[in-house]
Amino acid sequence: MPSLAQRPIGVFDSGIGGLTVTRALMERLPFEDIVYFGDTARVPYGVKSVATIEQFSLQMVDFLLRHEVKMLVIACNTIAAVADAKVRAHAGIPVLDVIDAGSRNAVTATRSRSIGVMATPTTVNSNAYARGIHALDAEMRVYSQACPLLVPLVEEGWLEHPVTRLTAQEYLKPVLAEGVDTLVLGCTHYPLLKPLLAELAGPSVALVDSAVSVAEQAARTLAELDLATPNREMAHYRYYVTDIPLRFQTVGERFLGRSLQHLEMVQL
Amino acid sequence: MPSLAQRPIGVFDSGIGGLTVTRALMERLPFEDIVYFGDTARVPYGVKSVATIEQFSLQMVDFLLRHEVKMLVIACNTIAAVADAKVRAHAGIPVLDVIDAGSRNAVTATRSRSIGVMATPTTVNSNAYARGIHALDAEMRVYSQACPLLVPLVEEGWLEHPVTRLTAQEYLKPVLAEGVDTLVLGCTHYPLLKPLLAELAGPSVALVDSAVSVAEQAARTLAELDLATPNREMAHYRYYVTDIPLRFQTVGERFLGRSLQHLEMVQL
Repeated sequence: MPSLAQRPIGVFDSGIGGLTVTRALMERLPFEDIVYFGDTARVPYGVKSVATIEQFSLQMVDFLLRHEVKMLVIACNTIAAVADAKVRAHAGIPVLDVIDAGSRNAVTATRSRSIGVMATPTTVNSNAYARGIHALDAEMRVYSQACPLLVPLVEEGWLEHPVTRLTAQEYLKPVLAEGVDTLVLGCTHYPLLKPLLAELAGPSVALVDSAVSVAEQAARTLAELDLATPNREMAHYRYYVTDIPLRFQTVGERFLGRSLQHLEMVQL
Repeated sequence: MPSLAQRPIGVFDSGIGGLTVTRALMERLPFEDIVYFGDTARVPYGVKSVATIEQFSLQMVDFLLRHEVKMLVIACNTIAAVADAKVRAHAGIPVLDVIDAGSRNAVTATRSRSIGVMATPTTVNSNAYARGIHALDAEMRVYSQACPLLVPLVEEGWLEHPVTRLTAQEYLKPVLAEGVDTLVLGCTHYPLLKPLLAELAGPSVALVDSAVSVAEQAARTLAELDLATPNREMAHYRYYVTDIPLRFQTVGERFLGRSLQHLEMVQL
């Protein structure tokens, strides 16, 4: 019987965005098994109410708990913003999330103590990044910008398109006007826009990638709790989704940065 | 007990886009009661698989049948494109849909026999407009363009924004290059972009609005089947949705062109 440490990490998201988090975990923790769950039949969560997001999230948590994961990673800013407390209360195992991890890295990175946050409307309206950052340092100034169009632009694959550039400029203008020196990419889709956003924001602004942040935190947490796998064989990855739409494989592999195998469709 | 003709019309959509169809029905048939159902907890359908869209659609149909509607209007191009046969087989009452109605009007409108169709990727990939148009006239030439960004742009309210203009130009370019004289707005969100699209397409291109088309067809069908209401009092409108997200009221009223009352959230 495998030890607790040999169990997989459970990662979940409303859709495929969490694959950027999975990718960061694979790169940081190459021997850890991962079970991914994406609620692709009901994506996106960013336009849904809090009660609905909570309900859907706990359904995913129960699914992953049945797969005996040792730790949960909320790889979705919307879920982390509005349902993290419910998930933590329900899970009974360590739970990490992209907002907590991104907030910590932003506070560490800033010199001017002015942080910008780009995210979906629900994440911005939840005020979760501002709360996360202020819990660490109440003196920080936080400027948030809702960017509802960036997710569809990324999924369209227009990563360097003039429309994406114009849209990103529009969203960045008010944030940069506040003189931030640190910009949190508060949505798991945005790492694919990092080159464009870095160019538009300029060299004086540090970009904080929540996916990379939570992978670093996962490595620390597993070490602290003595839960890091002793395995040194090739890790196993499984992907469960509630729907496999057209172009899923293509878009998923763009997010994951590698081929997407062992994909299974399930109903919640 | 009310007669069959006094029963409401049932209108359903994956979300709020169908409110543009509801608006067209209200304007064309001001005495008809309407029950609207929008699956806002699981919107959008355009990125989901056929099996999932069929399953979700039949759940909405069952809900409306329990509300004793006399006719169903599929106010969603994605559902009409991939699940119309299932809905018709299941319903047992007359079923109209935006694709059939839009196809008929496009064939009537064109002189050059070259028709352009703008729609979501799922609608385009389903080839439903081309099939609908060719069923009426096999000699028609149909040029379809998937426009995945127009829905989020409309929901953002950027109806005249430079980004929307640039995006629409990008999508229109290949269609206009084919010399079409008729352009079908094959998504219920697009009527809000009619002024912009009309300007970009120019006066030689006729725009066919599927919402208006299906409302005209509803009026004809009710008259033919002797199902038009004899009521001459103010019509009753009820709206059921599976989620009431932030800004729903604002966005919904923009689509509906009037205040949105008697809204209720239900679970399927």
